[in-house]
Amino acid sequence: MAVIGASSTKGKIGREILHNILRAEFNGKVFPVNPKASVIQSIKSYSTILDVPDAVDLAILIIPKEFVKEAAVQCGEKGVKGLIVITAGFSEVGPEGKKREQELLEVVNEYGIRMMGPNCFGAVNTDPRISLNATFGKVYPRPGRIGFITQSGAMGEAIMSHANELGIGFSIVASIGNKADMSSNDVLEYLRDDPHTDIILMYLENFGNPVNFTKIAREISRVKPIVAVKSGRTKLGAAAASSHTGALAGLDVGVDALFEQTGVMRVDTVEELFDVASALVKQPVPKGNRVVVVTNAGGPGILATDALISNGMEMPALSPATVKNLRTFASANASFSNPMDMVAGAAGREFKMTLDAIKTDKRYDTIMPILVPPVTVDQMEVARSIHESLADVDKTVLTCFFGAGEKPEAIEYLKDHNIPVYIFPEAIAKTLAALTKYRRWLSKPRGKHRNFKVDQAKVQAIVDEAMSSGQAALVGKQAIEVLRAYGIPAAGYRYAFSVKEAVDTATEIGFPVVMKINTPAILHKTEAGGVMVDLRHPREIRAAYLNLEKRVGKLKKGEKFSVALQQMITGGVETVMGMTIDPSFGPLIMFGLGGIFVEIMKDVSFRINPLTDTEAREMIRSIRSYPLLTGFRGSAPVDLKMLEETLLRLSQLVKDFDCFSEIDINPFIISDDKSLCKAVDARLIIRKQ
Amino acid sequence: MAVIGASSTKGKIGREILHNILRAEFNGKVFPVNPKASVIQSIKSYSTILDVPDAVDLAILIIPKEFVKEAAVQCGEKGVKGLIVITAGFSEVGPEGKKREQELLEVVNEYGIRMMGPNCFGAVNTDPRISLNATFGKVYPRPGRIGFITQSGAMGEAIMSHANELGIGFSIVASIGNKADMSSNDVLEYLRDDPHTDIILMYLENFGNPVNFTKIAREISRVKPIVAVKSGRTKLGAAAASSHTGALAGLDVGVDALFEQTGVMRVDTVEELFDVASALVKQPVPKGNRVVVVTNAGGPGILATDALISNGMEMPALSPATVKNLRTFASANASFSNPMDMVAGAAGREFKMTLDAIKTDKRYDTIMPILVPPVTVDQMEVARSIHESLADVDKTVLTCFFGAGEKPEAIEYLKDHNIPVYIFPEAIAKTLAALTKYRRWLSKPRGKHRNFKVDQAKVQAIVDEAMSSGQAALVGKQAIEVLRAYGIPAAGYRYAFSVKEAVDTATEIGFPVVMKINTPAILHKTEAGGVMVDLRHPREIRAAYLNLEKRVGKLKKGEKFSVALQQMITGGVETVMGMTIDPSFGPLIMFGLGGIFVEIMKDVSFRINPLTDTEAREMIRSIRSYPLLTGFRGSAPVDLKMLEETLLRLSQLVKDFDCFSEIDINPFIISDDKSLCKAVDARLIIRKQ
Repeated sequence: MAVIGASSTKGKIGREILHNILRAEFNGKVFPVNPKASVIQSIKSYSTILDVPDAVDLAILIIPKEFVKEAAVQCGEKGVKGLIVITAGFSEVGPEGKKREQELLEVVNEYGIRMMGPNCFGAVNTDPRISLNATFGKVYPRPGRIGFITQSGAMGEAIMSHANELGIGFSIVASIGNKADMSSNDVLEYLRDDPHTDIILMYLENFGNPVNFTKIAREISRVKPIVAVKSGRTKLGAAAASSHTGALAGLDVGVDALFEQTGVMRVDTVEELFDVASALVKQPVPKGNRVVVVTNAGGPGILATDALISNGMEMPALSPATVKNLRTFASANASFSNPMDMVAGAAGREFKMTLDAIKTDKRYDTIMPILVPPVTVDQMEVARSIHESLADVDKTVLTCFFGAGEKPEAIEYLKDHNIPVYIFPEAIAKTLAALTKYRRWLSKPRGKHRNFKVDQAKVQAIVDEAMSSGQAALVGKQAIEVLRAYGIPAAGYRYAFSVKEAVDTATEIGFPVVMKINTPAILHKTEAGGVMVDLRHPREIRAAYLNLEKRVGKLKKGEKFSVALQQMITGGVETVMGMTIDPSFGPLIMFGLGGIFVEIMKDVSFRINPLTDTEAREMIRSIRSYPLLTGFRGSAPVDLKMLEETLLRLSQLVKDFDCFSEIDINPFIISDDKSLCKAVDARLIIRKQ
Repeated sequence: MAVIGASSTKGKIGREILHNILRAEFNGKVFPVNPKASVIQSIKSYSTILDVPDAVDLAILIIPKEFVKEAAVQCGEKGVKGLIVITAGFSEVGPEGKKREQELLEVVNEYGIRMMGPNCFGAVNTDPRISLNATFGKVYPRPGRIGFITQSGAMGEAIMSHANELGIGFSIVASIGNKADMSSNDVLEYLRDDPHTDIILMYLENFGNPVNFTKIAREISRVKPIVAVKSGRTKLGAAAASSHTGALAGLDVGVDALFEQTGVMRVDTVEELFDVASALVKQPVPKGNRVVVVTNAGGPGILATDALISNGMEMPALSPATVKNLRTFASANASFSNPMDMVAGAAGREFKMTLDAIKTDKRYDTIMPILVPPVTVDQMEVARSIHESLADVDKTVLTCFFGAGEKPEAIEYLKDHNIPVYIFPEAIAKTLAALTKYRRWLSKPRGKHRNFKVDQAKVQAIVDEAMSSGQAALVGKQAIEVLRAYGIPAAGYRYAFSVKEAVDTATEIGFPVVMKINTPAILHKTEAGGVMVDLRHPREIRAAYLNLEKRVGKLKKGEKFSVALQQMITGGVETVMGMTIDPSFGPLIMFGLGGIFVEIMKDVSFRINPLTDTEAREMIRSIRSYPLLTGFRGSAPVDLKMLEETLLRLSQLVKDFDCFSEIDINPFIISDDKSLCKAVDARLIIRKQ
């Protein structure tokens, strides 16, 4: 391995990296390269990599940005296979740097070199056969079974430092920097196959190729858990968008959908990242969400209960057999409920006996002992008791030493014996929530992509015609025809250009009907008062027609007033479905209940297209207003199968046609009677060419 | 002072207390009392308190529970004014203990002694003129300006220990135990007047007298901030209740309402308690919610932005003048936005210059410097620069040393200089959210209780009649009359016992009308299909009548089918208001939007009765669906004044009549036209005698 640019006189970062490599006792040879020095840190140094006598596998560049390209060429000539470019000043600093990065990338591609960076913090591999710490941080991470990918060097160091304090070790640390060549996806694939890595942590600021990430992460999550902090949650802000689907997607929904679909556990903070990681490293993923709390004080027991229940855990009562068993020895003042409060006198002996009695209770998946260290109790003794009792249990064990800090030996003891310890019960509750979500994801059927028989040619014809005539969107009749071609039922339109025509058409359709302004074209008809619903009588048709005509007011030259008439569908539930394009994630499918639910309550779900049947099912079930679909106030449950199928058909339409930038089916009426399930209005915005 | 029960032979707790008192160098005389010892910890001991030669102000009892009462009598005879009873085994252990506590209370009442406990952890007063640590914990708290009230001894010690680690000191620590005599309210009143206390922290499990607490805390919050962890958030569970208001109140709404109304900052965890306390001790409450972040690394800047925005903060861009100023010295790679990313090279000098430039920018209320400690930077230098630049600024300063832990000197330095330091930016965001909420509460008008002219006598007459005839509830006509007597407009009922009567009545009322089953009585009419709305034609009346009659089916003997007819109010927004009795907080007033908003989205607000005008205003504005009231999709904004007044009239009704256990006004239609604002249905459940 050659370290290019390490200097004894200046270049602090190069010196640090070389120092770290030497300190970590790299299991190989190191050759410093620097045109101005012959010795660096007591090691013979070479002018260029071409002068190095041995073959070189990996080169680390820490040289002025102007010389990086030339050095890369020399590496290529030398036959180097891997390159870590620490040097900054590339795509992160604007167009000039971007160009520099592009040129560098061309060099490495030409020579078939794989490159990490530029603008990265380096990499660590703690495998004793390698023992490489090629970073310039002050932190030397412990060996462990966590692979860690970070997009920010500064965060990488801060996180490694925090991990050291928590006693958490790493197999690999990879700072991917600008990801010019190697991306987090590449490192993920490496970690999937790395026998030294059991768990993968990520700190991400954006996704290079989210479609690839989705594919790779979904597979890896099946075998190794991935936990990620993705920052930038609120940064996108709400970009102005021409329709509801677009505006709603202006949040972080693409990222959330991606995590939902891949099983990657998303956490909000670096603290939570390690809370979850500590549990994954030392304990099995809980088999269910049932927790028993065993505590020596009431207060933290209540705090734990609050936190567990709010995080979706269950706390079943102790089984009668367990209570009977406990009563043979426990204090009469104990509570014998869940939380099981042993009261303040409880010491090691009581913890041991109580946990022994409870660990066989089949009602629980997780055991959570809490110790509030009182004056009279030897914490080390309690730690030993917890370990003795629970070392061999086939449940998940997460311990809380409430507010601890005085006697770290006891905590260290438990950690060394694979029992994670937390200072506050809330951290355990959040951790269990993440693990439970992961377990549920693991146990879900993988899902299939359905392929319906549809009339793709017909849609193509409508699109071609619309595009050739310069239309910005498909609305009204055209939109309805597109949906029907994809097997999505839709209520047809009939147009009327006079009161008489309107009355006749309505009578033909059958009352009640809906009347909308057809021409002149108005985008948000409801807001403009351009929609009259539930018209039940020729008299009402007449009034509505005149009312709408009056609303439109003076017409432009050549315009003629007309209305669209449609069967009024009653008794169902209004839903909304649609598609919007996320700049990074591509098409997202959206689902929610109509009107206020979408617009005020923002109660919608998004998934990255294409959807599997499992995903369609889930996105329907994940909205808060879902109970409205399963029978509310005595109404019949809607046809959920039909709704799922409609989403899958929409997904297929989106997959087949990339010419739409946005689709809104609003409302799609769904009811218990399949024949009444229908799209009433739709709009497909054509992507600007 | 006498310590009663401290023993040299057994009684570990008594020994610890005496030891703590001596170690803290109590500024007065201590007399141990124990019938079996003549010397305890080298101090002369007395058989009973009556043998103590000097006058005694405070006695601390740590003796077997059986002897507590007798000792209390002796204290009374001795003229003791204050008693701390550490001994457990009173009301917390069941009926026998409850009786024991009652007897003890009678003794102290008789002698005019104020008592803390029993079953408490003791008390601390760090005032150097007193210097008392009468607790049995291992922790000796630092002196400081925080008064701390805890209901749990174990939590008290854990919290004191955690505070010591954080370098936070206390003026007073009071463990109130079973609160037989002195409650948290009494201690609160003491702390209000205590010149050594600026901030009050509380750990609470329940409220002894929430009405008093509300009154006291509301006043104290004006002068000293109160921060509380109230556990038991989810414990109440959802008690089965006969109506919506009741079921919705089965959450923690009483407690939340109380905190809303008193300005007490409620935090979820002990960690947050100290995050907020650290800011309050060292920094002013921010004047607004505008934050500027200054960081040496992008990653934590983004994490901070996410956390701040999600917690309701604003992050305006730097002013042009500030940017111009910064450009004169900052790195060209810096971001000049908010967060201001100085990039990784930034050290003490850059922090100083950047903060100097930013601190005069009037766009911000809070400055949040973030340091991610990289290899090249001296943390102490950065700490000094932050202090030098910001020591005299009139904004709030909260600093983040991201993931820190390696160089605590720098952090200690800042803390010693009144700049709180947090390890993760999320803690700062949550802290600012709590402080901002408090500031908003402080700046709100205090609110007035309105007193409307109402016909109380009429309601009394209706209630008397109903009670004497054994009615369980006021419904239909009676309920409408009660509302009208209190100036709440309500749509009248007319009854019909035949199709013909129904048609005639409907024609008289004017179409459209609503028809409901009147007799036989059905509680949830809508669910049972007993309500037909929007009937517009005699033909529809006929059909509806027959349909309802058919639904009712076979009548019991003596029953006669009838319907209630009511004007159909269209075009408004359905709201729901009501009252439910919380077991601790008494009557709570509820408000929300009708139907699904209340029942599925649980989008309601509660306040403890009686309401002030400010509170009525707020409870309307605090629901998520509030935008529906201010004009949605082009509809006119509703008459909010009218809505507020209606809530205040309901509040007055609830205050005047304690005979109701539950009130539901559902729906109350509200629109822009005051004459159309009306209660359509109501039900007042009469409290069981």
